[in-house]
Amino acid sequence: MADLNKFFETVDSLKPEFIQRLSDAVAIPSVSADAEHRPEVVKMAHWTVDQLKALGAHDIELRELGVQEGTEDLQLPPVVLAKYGNDANKKNILIYGHLDVQPALKEDGWNTDPFVLTVDEEKDVMYGRGSTDDKGPVIGWLNAIEAYKKAGIDFPVNLVMCFEGMEESGSLGLEQLVFAEGDKYFKGVDAVCISDNYWLGTTHPVLTYGLRGCNYYSITITGPGADLHSGVFGGIVNEPMIDLSKVLATLVDGKGKIQIEGVDKMVAPVTEEERSRYDDIHYDIKELTEATGGNDINMHSTKEDTLMARWRYPSLSIHGIEGAFSGAGAKTVIPAKVSGKFSIRTVPNINSKMLDELVFAHVEKEFAKLGSKCKLNVELVHDGDYWVSDPNNWNFTAAKKATKAVWGVEPDLTREGGSIPITLIFEQATKSDVLLLPMGRGDDGAHSINEKLNISNYIGGVKTLGAYLHYIAEEKKE
Amino acid sequence: MADLNKFFETVDSLKPEFIQRLSDAVAIPSVSADAEHRPEVVKMAHWTVDQLKALGAHDIELRELGVQEGTEDLQLPPVVLAKYGNDANKKNILIYGHLDVQPALKEDGWNTDPFVLTVDEEKDVMYGRGSTDDKGPVIGWLNAIEAYKKAGIDFPVNLVMCFEGMEESGSLGLEQLVFAEGDKYFKGVDAVCISDNYWLGTTHPVLTYGLRGCNYYSITITGPGADLHSGVFGGIVNEPMIDLSKVLATLVDGKGKIQIEGVDKMVAPVTEEERSRYDDIHYDIKELTEATGGNDINMHSTKEDTLMARWRYPSLSIHGIEGAFSGAGAKTVIPAKVSGKFSIRTVPNINSKMLDELVFAHVEKEFAKLGSKCKLNVELVHDGDYWVSDPNNWNFTAAKKATKAVWGVEPDLTREGGSIPITLIFEQATKSDVLLLPMGRGDDGAHSINEKLNISNYIGGVKTLGAYLHYIAEEKKE
Repeated sequence: MADLNKFFETVDSLKPEFIQRLSDAVAIPSVSADAEHRPEVVKMAHWTVDQLKALGAHDIELRELGVQEGTEDLQLPPVVLAKYGNDANKKNILIYGHLDVQPALKEDGWNTDPFVLTVDEEKDVMYGRGSTDDKGPVIGWLNAIEAYKKAGIDFPVNLVMCFEGMEESGSLGLEQLVFAEGDKYFKGVDAVCISDNYWLGTTHPVLTYGLRGCNYYSITITGPGADLHSGVFGGIVNEPMIDLSKVLATLVDGKGKIQIEGVDKMVAPVTEEERSRYDDIHYDIKELTEATGGNDINMHSTKEDTLMARWRYPSLSIHGIEGAFSGAGAKTVIPAKVSGKFSIRTVPNINSKMLDELVFAHVEKEFAKLGSKCKLNVELVHDGDYWVSDPNNWNFTAAKKATKAVWGVEPDLTREGGSIPITLIFEQATKSDVLLLPMGRGDDGAHSINEKLNISNYIGGVKTLGAYLHYIAEEKKE
Repeated sequence: MADLNKFFETVDSLKPEFIQRLSDAVAIPSVSADAEHRPEVVKMAHWTVDQLKALGAHDIELRELGVQEGTEDLQLPPVVLAKYGNDANKKNILIYGHLDVQPALKEDGWNTDPFVLTVDEEKDVMYGRGSTDDKGPVIGWLNAIEAYKKAGIDFPVNLVMCFEGMEESGSLGLEQLVFAEGDKYFKGVDAVCISDNYWLGTTHPVLTYGLRGCNYYSITITGPGADLHSGVFGGIVNEPMIDLSKVLATLVDGKGKIQIEGVDKMVAPVTEEERSRYDDIHYDIKELTEATGGNDINMHSTKEDTLMARWRYPSLSIHGIEGAFSGAGAKTVIPAKVSGKFSIRTVPNINSKMLDELVFAHVEKEFAKLGSKCKLNVELVHDGDYWVSDPNNWNFTAAKKATKAVWGVEPDLTREGGSIPITLIFEQATKSDVLLLPMGRGDDGAHSINEKLNISNYIGGVKTLGAYLHYIAEEKKE
């Protein structure tokens, strides 16, 4: 504990340097979505390598992933692999983060230049694209290394680092790399820690043990060979948009309950132990109204029901329609071919392939009921499995101790409604426990304008990451 | 009849000149939809004025309509008004047509330059944008004047001409002008003839006595203040796209029957006389399969049911959705605000205002059933009434005689499923009978690539227009 206190003090003393380091990183507009920004993502990888070299990391590699699929010759940005420490008596902890960011333009409505870290000490806030997602956490790890070094404390574990540059664009190429390196670069990994999500609210630290999966579907209905004029053909022909509306309307009821037969039965029942976890979670459903832009559109009336709906029940959202008239104004077209897009967020114990079968059968049955001469095609666009870990395992125990040591409270144990597919990949490839240990707050606005990270979360986060390494070193591996 | 035969012979002898005149007109790309083409529309108006002057028309005016609504300073193209003949003992026949065309680019898939009239004598076809819609018919009137002149026959009527340049873009400004000139420039008009539609098929000439109206609606459902991530909010909040799909699904059944209560009751019952008109119409429903691109999506099994569905029953089409994800690929968004667009084609005796009330009540009732916290707004975007004339009145009688004289057959009496709002405006403003007398065939592809007009329809059309003037002069006005 003396070591930890010294580590904490050193972190506090390095605050100006740590903010400068984050500022340097935010200044590189490493937007992965645009080909024209690709050199900046590469620059960000090189910047990270330079930092790692200066800190004494070894076995540093810039792993090339080849040409981006669907492009002529656009190279994917390299993945940064690095190790810090090589002591056979220490545990090997794999940490993952990403160096790329979402697009951002001042004109989108930012109050400040998105690629200039703007620090407001009074408000305890730093604004900038990537501040919380995910440069803050990645640099948090670098800061932790530096603080251990400067405090003169032996680093508690061997770190195995994996920082990618395509997370905001589907982590292209990463899955193959992680599986390929499972018993090579990542050999001997004892546990994985990912810092790339957020506290549930704004005041209470959390650890995250579950993510929903996502199966994304497309229903395509084809009628005429080309768009038709509704004056000439309206009332005569079967119209794909009418058929599609009718099929989409059968997928889910007005209370969010999925109407596809058999889905319910696959959902794991709520145990008493699980239910009790929700009681103490720090969350006010009034926050939801703010998060949805001030309109109360919550279908649930209690905190527990709301969180369970987000975390442990499946949901179905209809995203839109491709091929129909989507502009402003009035166009009297009968669209020839329309594709309705919807996705189902999956949870234990939904079998992804079984879900596909149920969805296809339901859509085909409902379409058949219409007696339409249009043609139907329903397909899975992409899928990614859910992930749920045991929040009482040794990896979480270490993180709980770290949270308590830094924040003075027990962390809430949360799940997320969204998907971070790489989580499950790391679990499978390293055959070890994965922990999600967030740094930022629920209101950081990761993909929005005015993305921010609170200074206290940044500094407290560096301490938490460092303390986690301290406690995982002590913890008995399960 | 001797006069008419001489007129027909003269038309035949002038065929090269008539084709050249159409060729000159097609060469002016008078696309009304694009601001950048506006000068070409104006040029086309001036070209027409020059033609009219050369033919001896008088009281020629280029009537300016002011700045186009919604633009800074884009002038609407002028309407060409002209008279030919001024004999108090002759009837005054108003003819209408339009000088503007739909957009066309070679890259759209045209086999030939769309703005070069390409004549294939062997195939009896002339390709070019505007050939059939509506330069062929407009120039047909000019050709008829020339042929009467060159044949040395006294022109049978006084013509009052109205040629606009915005028909393909909503006839902006025309309605006001027509009503304003009802008892001024158009004073004393005995009958109106519009040549701006098509034969039903490809072999049999038709006269058209009805058009459906169109009421266009938008249902807007608003949920969150901004788009949400379906991972984070799916299953928690009411989603506008889900609500909208459910409401849209209630509008019409799979057989095209409108499900909005009360609409059916407003539709005039089919009389025996009306039903019998359908028996002899030359139409093979197999043509419909070709017209819809080779896919048989006809909801009806007989010619009569198919034509009645197009002409005399209302229909409801869903055109698309504004605000939802409409791109290719997969996006996991919960759209914040979506607007579903649909329209109802109206027929006798649907009261437009009453229809609005029924639509609003239905949509509100169906939305209320959902128990959603989203907000609903349903509104009429635009409307235009149906038009039905008596196909046995004196105006039609003259046109029937003309058709018989030129084509040797009785014309089919048709209606159209689409709307030509200006038809009703002319009827109301001039308080006279309107006749739709088409020149081209049903497969001319008016708004498509490779728009064409058959040479035989062009020359036969000039004869029919001229013969119509001959017979309307003889006919006793009702």
